[in-house]
Amino acid sequence: MSPRRVIGIDAGGTKLLGGVVDDDLAVRHRVHRLWRGAERQDLLDVMVDAVEEARAAAPDVAAVAFGIPSLVERETGASLFSVHLPLEGVPFRAWMEERIAMPVLVDNDANLALLAEVRAGSAQGAADAVMLTLGTGIGGGILAGGRIQRGARGAGAELGHVVVDLDGPPCQGRCPGRGCLEVMASGSAIGREGADAARRSPSSALGRRLGAGAEITGAVVTELAHEGDAAARSVLELVGRRLGAGIAGLVNLLDPEVVVVGGGAAAAGDLLLDPARAVFAERVLPPHRERVEIRPAHFGPEAGMLGAAILALEEDRPG
Amino acid sequence: MSPRRVIGIDAGGTKLLGGVVDDDLAVRHRVHRLWRGAERQDLLDVMVDAVEEARAAAPDVAAVAFGIPSLVERETGASLFSVHLPLEGVPFRAWMEERIAMPVLVDNDANLALLAEVRAGSAQGAADAVMLTLGTGIGGGILAGGRIQRGARGAGAELGHVVVDLDGPPCQGRCPGRGCLEVMASGSAIGREGADAARRSPSSALGRRLGAGAEITGAVVTELAHEGDAAARSVLELVGRRLGAGIAGLVNLLDPEVVVVGGGAAAAGDLLLDPARAVFAERVLPPHRERVEIRPAHFGPEAGMLGAAILALEEDRPG
Repeated sequence: MSPRRVIGIDAGGTKLLGGVVDDDLAVRHRVHRLWRGAERQDLLDVMVDAVEEARAAAPDVAAVAFGIPSLVERETGASLFSVHLPLEGVPFRAWMEERIAMPVLVDNDANLALLAEVRAGSAQGAADAVMLTLGTGIGGGILAGGRIQRGARGAGAELGHVVVDLDGPPCQGRCPGRGCLEVMASGSAIGREGADAARRSPSSALGRRLGAGAEITGAVVTELAHEGDAAARSVLELVGRRLGAGIAGLVNLLDPEVVVVGGGAAAAGDLLLDPARAVFAERVLPPHRERVEIRPAHFGPEAGMLGAAILALEEDRPG
Repeated sequence: MSPRRVIGIDAGGTKLLGGVVDDDLAVRHRVHRLWRGAERQDLLDVMVDAVEEARAAAPDVAAVAFGIPSLVERETGASLFSVHLPLEGVPFRAWMEERIAMPVLVDNDANLALLAEVRAGSAQGAADAVMLTLGTGIGGGILAGGRIQRGARGAGAELGHVVVDLDGPPCQGRCPGRGCLEVMASGSAIGREGADAARRSPSSALGRRLGAGAEITGAVVTELAHEGDAAARSVLELVGRRLGAGIAGLVNLLDPEVVVVGGGAAAAGDLLLDPARAVFAERVLPPHRERVEIRPAHFGPEAGMLGAAILALEEDRPG
């Protein structure tokens, strides 16, 4: 008997990563797409196109699951709202089922990243865990008592939109908040603070990169920090400290065993996480201090795609 | 057959409220104690003394339950940590069972306030709800999928210690954090901001009260605000707006149906809650805006005591 295979799609704020995944979580074929400022119809078409490419490589797939950066209504698979994509009020699952002749599943992207880390990654064995995915925005997932928490309508766990600076800057995308964790500590925040640092320190590697006309993104800051540029490192330190303060509050609130940090910005590794751990230890309520670990995602930026595949594999389990 | 009766004790940061409660939630006898800066042994003795007073009034009580402002370890009934009382590492339930010849139950005070509001108050019928109790500190409770959430060790839901101002003032009591919701929006915060406002506006009622040598507490600010003093009202407006921003983050995170605000500071009523509602509506993610109500606690400052009684009544249910 051939292994069961599914397609997992992680649709982020600016890009898509998909994969054909076997039931042992081996990834057989990856598909990539970029979008930026795409309209709703284009976005959905790109997703269908990515699924078709993956299916062409593995015609025997049994189902497809999507992680989308949306508040997803659990029962209907509708996207109620998305901070970064024009997916407000889209009956996502119904629409995809009409376009793709396969079972379709959908959940919030960060919930699925958490699912992957719980089943086989950095939160394996935990009954209570928190996941943060740092990318264009910040997604989040909460595991409590062994179950992923979804709130009254499945729209919960928008950990990126807890308020960490009451009088802070306006948040990103369609979020009407101020000083949300996302605007203070996402990959986009690293890019924004990096651009500021580049202007302040024109002779740093970061400053020279800006002077050469490059856009200072989170990825650029991370690259230069790994190469040792002090200006870039101080940006990761600043953002890491904010992240640690935010995590302290979330741990006080949720009492998890472990906090997993993933998403694209997790490429910064300990340059970001060590300052976060330091502020966390300073500020969290003492009983949590020694007990709760802040760990990088085992599956790195692939956690969301693998989690989508796991969702499909678990639904598709033979009776 | 006589009704089953229990004793419920709500032990707060500065005072105790107890009651003999029938199984229809009628309160037959109330006991009050004040403490401030008491040592551990004195504090526990005062609690035992309050129980004895209540039991003298109703010798037929079947059990006693305590709500304490602690991280309570669910399995053992031990107090792991308390921001406001010297109850760190106290084997609370075991100690009380030795002193009181009755079944003893214990939980976090705000979890019990939530229990009362869910069973018979402002969150009745909800499966997903958030409770904030505003007093000396801020306590919190989370109901998710019909169950009170306690985290990995039962120590969860310290909603007062989510960070809402990264660079804010040091938190209160034994909390090593900065800018926690508690230091920004508790009853103590109302008192502190009230004292500042009194100094800035010596001709206001608040200023005159300070000039006459009174201590400006949250209760004083609330009293003068109800009498129409503009300075006192602006304090409730300021703190209410902070509360609303914090609640927006909690709702984005937890997707509840309703947020209940109780505790002593809830006496400020709509003077505090209307500004909170306004900022909440401005800042929360749009799908929650019209849907989530911020309601005062039905049982006001008695929610914690009644919740303790409910805990005892539900445990004591005849087989």
